[in-house]
Amino acid sequence: MGAKHSLPQSFASYRRVVTVELKKVVDGCPPALGNILRYHMGWRDEYGHQCPRESGKFIRSSLCLLSCQAVGGNTSQAIPAAAAIELVHNFSLIHDDIEDASYERHHRPTVWRIWGQSQAINAGDAMFTLAYLALFGLKQRGIAGEKIAQCAEVLNRACLELCEGQHLDIEYENRLDMTIEDYIDMAARKTAALFAASTSLGAYLGSEDSELVDLFRLFGRALGIAFQIHDDILGIWGAPETVGKSADDIPQRKKTLPVAYGLQSSKGAARERLRKLYSKESIESKDIKKVTEILGNSGARNYAENVARQYYREALAHLDATGLGLSSLAPLKETTGFLLTRGF
Amino acid sequence: MGAKHSLPQSFASYRRVVTVELKKVVDGCPPALGNILRYHMGWRDEYGHQCPRESGKFIRSSLCLLSCQAVGGNTSQAIPAAAAIELVHNFSLIHDDIEDASYERHHRPTVWRIWGQSQAINAGDAMFTLAYLALFGLKQRGIAGEKIAQCAEVLNRACLELCEGQHLDIEYENRLDMTIEDYIDMAARKTAALFAASTSLGAYLGSEDSELVDLFRLFGRALGIAFQIHDDILGIWGAPETVGKSADDIPQRKKTLPVAYGLQSSKGAARERLRKLYSKESIESKDIKKVTEILGNSGARNYAENVARQYYREALAHLDATGLGLSSLAPLKETTGFLLTRGF
Repeated sequence: MGAKHSLPQSFASYRRVVTVELKKVVDGCPPALGNILRYHMGWRDEYGHQCPRESGKFIRSSLCLLSCQAVGGNTSQAIPAAAAIELVHNFSLIHDDIEDASYERHHRPTVWRIWGQSQAINAGDAMFTLAYLALFGLKQRGIAGEKIAQCAEVLNRACLELCEGQHLDIEYENRLDMTIEDYIDMAARKTAALFAASTSLGAYLGSEDSELVDLFRLFGRALGIAFQIHDDILGIWGAPETVGKSADDIPQRKKTLPVAYGLQSSKGAARERLRKLYSKESIESKDIKKVTEILGNSGARNYAENVARQYYREALAHLDATGLGLSSLAPLKETTGFLLTRGF
Repeated sequence: MGAKHSLPQSFASYRRVVTVELKKVVDGCPPALGNILRYHMGWRDEYGHQCPRESGKFIRSSLCLLSCQAVGGNTSQAIPAAAAIELVHNFSLIHDDIEDASYERHHRPTVWRIWGQSQAINAGDAMFTLAYLALFGLKQRGIAGEKIAQCAEVLNRACLELCEGQHLDIEYENRLDMTIEDYIDMAARKTAALFAASTSLGAYLGSEDSELVDLFRLFGRALGIAFQIHDDILGIWGAPETVGKSADDIPQRKKTLPVAYGLQSSKGAARERLRKLYSKESIESKDIKKVTEILGNSGARNYAENVARQYYREALAHLDATGLGLSSLAPLKETTGFLLTRGF
């Protein structure tokens, strides 16, 4: 994979403009509800005080704006869509943290741990609602109603896939028989659907060429699958300080790609041991090392890295198929390389 | 209030057409996730088998179509909006049942009791997503993109108010100092916002007259507040078989209007007793009768009935202000009367 290890310059500047837009949208909430959302975004502490923390990496929204830029669009027109995507992603994180009973995100207590499950479910719903409100900001940027309705439909279908992926993710926790194909299908929905919406919406807001938009959709989808697999690998073999939430993957019996492979392809006693550990309600701390060891010996890491690399190449091939020049595609390619090498 | 005690004819026929539309939208979900939604809607049992149960009353969607009809619109064009509203309402019920730890809805186990909290949160999210998908069906009914984007914004703002109302509803469980104004503000958001979206969207899809649409919005808002207060009263003094979910209001320490009034206006020892009961984590079965007695003696029921009647009159006044003839308004007025006399 590419050897870039830091965020491209344009990525950081897009994060800033999206943050400004997001803060404006969240300000549309009354204070009590808004403060929960600001806490989750890392802008405030739990008492509502300013806290100059880094929030997420804004990967999806930056990909949206980078895609708009790549097709020669006016990126400022796409900012509301980028903000909407970031809000969808964050609503799903608030709910995922409840669903997975995760205690921490970005090294802080999760929303439900502070405000309780009920308010956290509701705050997630509010953030989901704000995503659409953000999207309707396209109107103020001169986008026609027809096109906004089209964007809303694209985002909406991605959200539905997200829910399907999440449904499968939870369901697979209790199953040992999932195949590699099941995994790819789940990752395509749980993660890649929103990546595909990000890149295709960015391209669509910058271009009327539907074939071009479709190539950006395919690029986003392949990148999203590669990203998820890379995240799976980081969750098992990454440095603890860079892993964050995915450190819970093994305790929660998440059927990540290395685990799906290991359950299928490990041999003999190791296989029995792995299946036995994954048949429990949850995997205890003391058994994590054993799981990691079995997976390592089964070749799961190499396998997963190869599959990620394959989707990474597919993603770049879709970009190249656009016929856009290197100068147009360079920031996107740089970002793609960064996303798939981060964290080790 | 009006003396009608059965659903108007048009109401039942609208319920049928909305059900057809809803089933079509839910069929867009893959089976596993779709079956949870079908169960919640009362169309299937938990194993996915047909079950010819009555689901909800489809009050909000019927109000949408009745409003469209009243302004002389083509109601078939408004069906996707009616379906969207019903899906928003039902997504909020799935999440409310988790938030309130409710065991039953429509005399069946709630979704979270069968599939667990995680899948229930996710299924609610999917239903919320489907609401927008349903709304985009307006395109196939010949509604222009500009107008669809406008409808989506109206629905979206109602959803945000719904979340705000729910936030307050949960917050007030732990407070004794809420005023009558606080209650009205909460009810306006938690319930009336979606009623107002229903009636205004119905009118908007049938008419270009923005003043007329605004009167329908005000009608829906006033009706929604009256409806919520009526529901509060039913939750305490209604016949058990007609009450359904609201039977949990007292155990869950919900600050309904009679309770808000009782906490403020009951006197002496009764007041102390009431405040003491509402300071507990939850109110036990044995204490429900005591609460009901104190509220009855404090005049809370009369008070709440008077406030409901006041909003009922306000609702009718907004309808009359439209200047539409009696033949146009009769079905809506009939429905309004029914909604506020049901259940005793």
